[in-house]
Amino acid sequence: MTLPAPLTGVVPPVCTPLTPDREVDVPSLIGLVDHLVDGGVDALFVLGSSSEAAYLTDAQRRLVVETVVSHVAGRMPVLAGAIDMTTPRVLDHVAYAARAGADAVVVTAPFYTRTHPAEIARHFRVLADRSPVPVLAYDIPVAVHTKLNPDLVLELAAEGTLAGLKDSSGDLAAFRAVVTGARTGTGITGFSVLTGSELVVDSALALGADGAVPGLANVDPAAYVRLDRLCRAGDWDAARTEQERLCALYGMVGAGNPARMGGSSSGLGAFKAALHLRGVIACPATVEPQVPLSEEETARVGKFLAAAGLL
Amino acid sequence: MTLPAPLTGVVPPVCTPLTPDREVDVPSLIGLVDHLVDGGVDALFVLGSSSEAAYLTDAQRRLVVETVVSHVAGRMPVLAGAIDMTTPRVLDHVAYAARAGADAVVVTAPFYTRTHPAEIARHFRVLADRSPVPVLAYDIPVAVHTKLNPDLVLELAAEGTLAGLKDSSGDLAAFRAVVTGARTGTGITGFSVLTGSELVVDSALALGADGAVPGLANVDPAAYVRLDRLCRAGDWDAARTEQERLCALYGMVGAGNPARMGGSSSGLGAFKAALHLRGVIACPATVEPQVPLSEEETARVGKFLAAAGLL
Amino acid sequence: MTLPAPLTGVVPPVCTPLTPDREVDVPSLIGLVDHLVDGGVDALFVLGSSSEAAYLTDAQRRLVVETVVSHVAGRMPVLAGAIDMTTPRVLDHVAYAARAGADAVVVTAPFYTRTHPAEIARHFRVLADRSPVPVLAYDIPVAVHTKLNPDLVLELAAEGTLAGLKDSSGDLAAFRAVVTGARTGTGITGFSVLTGSELVVDSALALGADGAVPGLANVDPAAYVRLDRLCRAGDWDAARTEQERLCALYGMVGAGNPARMGGSSSGLGAFKAALHLRGVIACPATVEPQVPLSEEETARVGKFLAAAGLL
Amino acid sequence: MTLPAPLTGVVPPVCTPLTPDREVDVPSLIGLVDHLVDGGVDALFVLGSSSEAAYLTDAQRRLVVETVVSHVAGRMPVLAGAIDMTTPRVLDHVAYAARAGADAVVVTAPFYTRTHPAEIARHFRVLADRSPVPVLAYDIPVAVHTKLNPDLVLELAAEGTLAGLKDSSGDLAAFRAVVTGARTGTGITGFSVLTGSELVVDSALALGADGAVPGLANVDPAAYVRLDRLCRAGDWDAARTEQERLCALYGMVGAGNPARMGGSSSGLGAFKAALHLRGVIACPATVEPQVPLSEEETARVGKFLAAAGLL
Repeated sequence: MTLPAPLTGVVPPVCTPLTPDREVDVPSLIGLVDHLVDGGVDALFVLGSSSEAAYLTDAQRRLVVETVVSHVAGRMPVLAGAIDMTTPRVLDHVAYAARAGADAVVVTAPFYTRTHPAEIARHFRVLADRSPVPVLAYDIPVAVHTKLNPDLVLELAAEGTLAGLKDSSGDLAAFRAVVTGARTGTGITGFSVLTGSELVVDSALALGADGAVPGLANVDPAAYVRLDRLCRAGDWDAARTEQERLCALYGMVGAGNPARMGGSSSGLGAFKAALHLRGVIACPATVEPQVPLSEEETARVGKFLAAAGLL
Repeated sequence: MTLPAPLTGVVPPVCTPLTPDREVDVPSLIGLVDHLVDGGVDALFVLGSSSEAAYLTDAQRRLVVETVVSHVAGRMPVLAGAIDMTTPRVLDHVAYAARAGADAVVVTAPFYTRTHPAEIARHFRVLADRSPVPVLAYDIPVAVHTKLNPDLVLELAAEGTLAGLKDSSGDLAAFRAVVTGARTGTGITGFSVLTGSELVVDSALALGADGAVPGLANVDPAAYVRLDRLCRAGDWDAARTEQERLCALYGMVGAGNPARMGGSSSGLGAFKAALHLRGVIACPATVEPQVPLSEEETARVGKFLAAAGLL
Repeated sequence: MTLPAPLTGVVPPVCTPLTPDREVDVPSLIGLVDHLVDGGVDALFVLGSSSEAAYLTDAQRRLVVETVVSHVAGRMPVLAGAIDMTTPRVLDHVAYAARAGADAVVVTAPFYTRTHPAEIARHFRVLADRSPVPVLAYDIPVAVHTKLNPDLVLELAAEGTLAGLKDSSGDLAAFRAVVTGARTGTGITGFSVLTGSELVVDSALALGADGAVPGLANVDPAAYVRLDRLCRAGDWDAARTEQERLCALYGMVGAGNPARMGGSSSGLGAFKAALHLRGVIACPATVEPQVPLSEEETARVGKFLAAAGLL
Repeated sequence: MTLPAPLTGVVPPVCTPLTPDREVDVPSLIGLVDHLVDGGVDALFVLGSSSEAAYLTDAQRRLVVETVVSHVAGRMPVLAGAIDMTTPRVLDHVAYAARAGADAVVVTAPFYTRTHPAEIARHFRVLADRSPVPVLAYDIPVAVHTKLNPDLVLELAAEGTLAGLKDSSGDLAAFRAVVTGARTGTGITGFSVLTGSELVVDSALALGADGAVPGLANVDPAAYVRLDRLCRAGDWDAARTEQERLCALYGMVGAGNPARMGGSSSGLGAFKAALHLRGVIACPATVEPQVPLSEEETARVGKFLAAAGLL
């Protein structure tokens, strides 16, 4: 299908369920997709950070995108992350994602290597030139250690290099600069500005964002869809109440003991534990070297679900 | 061949020559290896940061390691970088490198994802458990944004997980902690502590390092071999003179205009321009999205070569 | 006067006008205070980052707080920054600010020295214990290089250590955690949560913030007051329009050439140039070693004022 | 006295002993100075980071510099830190230090505020212009969050702005650039390049540094003097042995539990505990908000002393 321009609404970054021996659990992945589609989401984003893309082998990544695209079968757009260090490596991921039928790819600035604004611009231009599908920029400084400059994003939008932005920077002021610039900028049409936040989706939509890509939408997709609809209807008080409920639920990402594990193990582990406790996936395993949640830590996740009425 | 324990001496991180359309230039790569072997180096390290490993596709990486191992044909050890974000992805690189005949692999801490000391330890333990060849740790905070803790390195050395350390952290005090600990620690034998610095090789060897992995050794391998031999002979005054000559030569990494490009474009571009000017490789191209040196910038590289008597 | 609990509304961080030889320009300072009071602001914050507190000597700081408190004469609360590296040094600033009649002090986490969450907590507890006036925390990671943890802020709020938070972190999600926690937390009453942002004041107020401390309010206080009132009235569309106008005006902070100066020189220089162009202060000088704006750069500031209808 | 040009040898950053109620303990300070002078040191540096300058009030700082200058009475140079955020504030500290008779002041780049290379240059130029005594630059990125560029340092040396550099950056390669540049640069004479490291003093002297400013020299001044003399004599093997002994002793800085306190509390607490255990000072207190070492942690310091033959 053609990517809507702009893409709007709730676009969950789909978790990647694993078997106990850490292979992609295809039936669980299909079950998770059904859970999200039933929740009313508007599109799917596979192979993002919440999907543990950084941990999946190329073969696993391919299997994920093929499985999801084939199962969705055109009912909604499927975006695929193409997360790698530099242009040529990203292009290899773009190739199989496009071949599998992904409707767009989502790409970060170069990382691992030292980079430069001119090189970031060149990166996206070369990618857009060679990608058979639209390219969205993925702004995630916590992972790549540079922040995409709003002016650069708008320049790349105006020239047709980028079809959208997925912003996981946490910097709402810079995000607003892109939102406002995309609305008022010369030559920019259909550019999709999406927040990656779980916690200020109402704020992002209020200032004009097109949609949200919240990892927590794996656990409670219907709530993010409700939140999105309330914002679109201008019912800001009810939206805030729903958002605050989701902020409380998001507390689950702190379930893991920080003396034993990092934020990825704890956060992605919590999402998967929640999906397992809710019966959506068969096994809560995360990829190595992430540290699994203990029973006690998993019980903590359960309490967040219970408090949110999800158990 | 079996990796010497410890590996000592000069181990250049081999640049990856490219054709003008940015494919691996196999004849130039072989020429570069001959240039290094003729310079008297003790081993080779392919697919490190100076090799543009972060920019090469998997197919190109495979071609590089196969080409070099096959051409070296056992005359000296060949180490291969296995640079990727997390354990399963690194293991894919380890597999083809070992299959190609690399004598050891060199692996960083996880990157892109948020990490934790316990996860870094787990990463190396899983890798060592599944790698058919010895694993050296690659400490490169500028790329992965965490620093390997000397105590952890020594613990992993003592238990046999790690065969060595390639330190590109720039932190000589922490490096010394590993050097001294590896010499005096219980149960540590044959652990190889290598500095990745171009600029303080004499200091590193003076405090007991086993060897050096200087990117600039691509340009002037014989000088680093002389430096290494002077240090081993205890001729510190002559060593310092040679080291200072190499520090001056290293100034070439600033040839690129920082308004136009980042440190990788400038530094790796300078190494390749120098190799091209010296007639070692056929083309100075670097991988996208790096910005090529201009003619004027290349001329600046030439002046550094001339000043060092290398033109 | 007693600090309102919570303090709400627009609280400009008052710029410090200087004479050409860089002494405090008392008549201009009084004129600026009148300009702000006439604009309808709810309180004043002297000796914050926008006041160039980091650049003023102790004698100058004392003069500023004495001048403003005396001129305001109880018409509205005056908060005073007490910006210094550690507890004993901050206490010296607290002493003269309280003596001058400031209604509260605003204090950052320790900086310059390496710090720790337990030490940050201890810092605020000792300060609150010894300060004759209420203490607000100032969260400004760009300056002090640590971020205040929302849980710690709420703990210090609940125990009565802190009377409020001025958040210049740019992290709206963490800010929301404090706002929501202050509203729902046990034992927290009258705690004031203020955003330091110029650009997302509407977002901050929509999610429940008590007020804003925007540096740009020096230039256009009436607009921030309008924005605040629109938000309180729930007129979010009009608020967004006003906020976007202010975002455009804020573009002035980029007037200085980044090849010649840093963000402080450019941003604070632009505020002062704007106040000078608007006739509020007599001289646009900033403190050394900041670089003054050139004529051309000052003209750029003028264009932002003109576009906003302020010239 | 006139500052030697260059200043050479061992220049301990003098700890600031406190009474139990955290006032400057003048008799202990005098006792510590005697201990250092008896150890054979070449000069003293008061009010540096190891002196807890960031924690001392202006009155305490003044008392320290007056006490030490007066007690030393010209027997050796006394340098004084003038640690503050920006030029005018630093000048206030320079004034009382010079009035007290300090032979030079030691000054960092601006901090807290956002800065820029041009502003750092201007900072030092204004200071040098107005300071009655020579100015040394203090490169301490861990505190001020910028690194002094070697080229800038050499430019400021050549023009006579700076009399020396105290390098606590941990970057030996950049340090070497200054050392070599100061030796070979046009128009640079008498510029003093001092390492702030405890752990690679032998390396720094081997590559041409003039001296060292090691905090640990408070605890064992004679050892650093021996190390310095061995290096000057070219007895590198004996120097390395002494240096390694001091590296082991330096392990004391990890005595504090990192779950309870930061690196400053632990490191400076350990130095003071060691001075107390050795009978040099009357009380091991550190300034608030630093966390005191527990009895168990103090006992750990004692073990390091015992292992080094210092108890």
